[in-house]
Amino acid sequence: MLDKNKKILIVGLGLMGGSYALALKEKGYRVGAVTRSPETIRYALEQGMIDEGTTAPEAAFVGAYDLVVFALYPHLLLEWLEQYQGMLRPGALLTDVTGVKSSIVYRVQQMLRGDVEFIGAHPMAGRELSGVRSADAGIFRGANYIVTPTVANTEAAITACEDLGRALGVARISRLSPEKHDEMIGFLSQLTHCIAVSLMTCRDTEHLSAYTGDSFRDLTRIARINGDMWSELFLLNKEELQRQIGLFITQLDALKTAIENDDTDTLKEMMRLSTERRAFFDK
Amino acid sequence: MLDKNKKILIVGLGLMGGSYALALKEKGYRVGAVTRSPETIRYALEQGMIDEGTTAPEAAFVGAYDLVVFALYPHLLLEWLEQYQGMLRPGALLTDVTGVKSSIVYRVQQMLRGDVEFIGAHPMAGRELSGVRSADAGIFRGANYIVTPTVANTEAAITACEDLGRALGVARISRLSPEKHDEMIGFLSQLTHCIAVSLMTCRDTEHLSAYTGDSFRDLTRIARINGDMWSELFLLNKEELQRQIGLFITQLDALKTAIENDDTDTLKEMMRLSTERRAFFDK
Repeated sequence: MLDKNKKILIVGLGLMGGSYALALKEKGYRVGAVTRSPETIRYALEQGMIDEGTTAPEAAFVGAYDLVVFALYPHLLLEWLEQYQGMLRPGALLTDVTGVKSSIVYRVQQMLRGDVEFIGAHPMAGRELSGVRSADAGIFRGANYIVTPTVANTEAAITACEDLGRALGVARISRLSPEKHDEMIGFLSQLTHCIAVSLMTCRDTEHLSAYTGDSFRDLTRIARINGDMWSELFLLNKEELQRQIGLFITQLDALKTAIENDDTDTLKEMMRLSTERRAFFDK
Repeated sequence: MLDKNKKILIVGLGLMGGSYALALKEKGYRVGAVTRSPETIRYALEQGMIDEGTTAPEAAFVGAYDLVVFALYPHLLLEWLEQYQGMLRPGALLTDVTGVKSSIVYRVQQMLRGDVEFIGAHPMAGRELSGVRSADAGIFRGANYIVTPTVANTEAAITACEDLGRALGVARISRLSPEKHDEMIGFLSQLTHCIAVSLMTCRDTEHLSAYTGDSFRDLTRIARINGDMWSELFLLNKEELQRQIGLFITQLDALKTAIENDDTDTLKEMMRLSTERRAFFDK
């Protein structure tokens, strides 16, 4: 387990950063925060989500932390490190929550001081809400958590990052290369968001709620989406995401052709396979 | 409200027929069943889901019912009427639960005796399970229910069919022409099932459960699918379904192109619209 004496700093106290803070405070860790809004700090202190917080990073504050979790938009993570990495304590371990990896992890590791270490992580958890007031330690219950080590990482850092996942209370921890992560997440998360958005916008849908069943609701839950964040994530994984969209369209088109040709055998075989595979995803 | 003295016959005691029986018995109606398996009848009697049941339709039995609900696969509904409509009581009202309408309703109304009336209905409710043992009156809670009258229908029959929906406990009742129904359901229900099946089968997915978040689970809940039933429903609505699949693919392809061109504005606008529209579908 992550040493209880380790002080943990959350940079970016939104839905995800706030949920980290809540989960870690529950476990008894000392948690600090750097975030942009004074109102967020006030709220988080009031709620007991953090022990201390600031909107203006200073060396005396930042340098006190052993583990720093970045819960920022990708471009802000890079900007923050550019500007403030000099304040980090020597030997500090840095990690993140970013939904893309290849385009971030290597750049961070390259720009970073030699006496601190960055290890990428991605908790597969979230809500269709944003901001610290939506933070909820419960989002990690049953969740998957992916650590994405590179050759630049030490085994100690990888293990500490996995310990962090355990402290959050996730259900399963995996290691993937940044590239493999981006392929998996391009398919499992980014493609699904592209599908939901396309389904909701491909025709007039405002008046359809009187006729819908739960299928459409299920497929569009994630159509309520933070455009700033997801457009950034999509573009940072563009080749992989385009490939996954392509695979999906090809298959849907094959199904459409089977319908056109009254090809019941092909339809049934696809549904048999689909039913068999879905069983692997029961929680 | 539907007259409590009306006797209701369910033909086909599977998930949907069984759920009708449970909901109607709860409301105090006398409910009978015709279904293929003696074991199903035994179980339904034991559970108090029905008052009487038979596997072999006879005039003395069938002719005792005022309202007959067909919860059969479409082709079996047509076969049943072909064979047994002579047994129906004069003045009986017939309805169904079938997920496609244009290809069924007109054929049924054409083949039917002049002294009985068929009015199509579609409860937008279900589960990823089948059979009488999965029946659950709760599936109608919060559900939409669509009645699809044609020029052949009397206002009295339409109202009685809506009353049946109220007796089931659905949340909202609408009237649509069979054609409009098939367009809406082609989009809201059939397209979503096509998407779920394609997503689950477009690449190897068996090993992905360690990396997934809830998005992929949500989009594939309905990938567990009854191939016999859905392939029949897809083919009975093939033109409309192909059109809806086409609309969706065109939009997903536009999103893919926006990603390819780093076109953040288009991406954000789609997500803004998608978010705005999703709000209409909150239960």
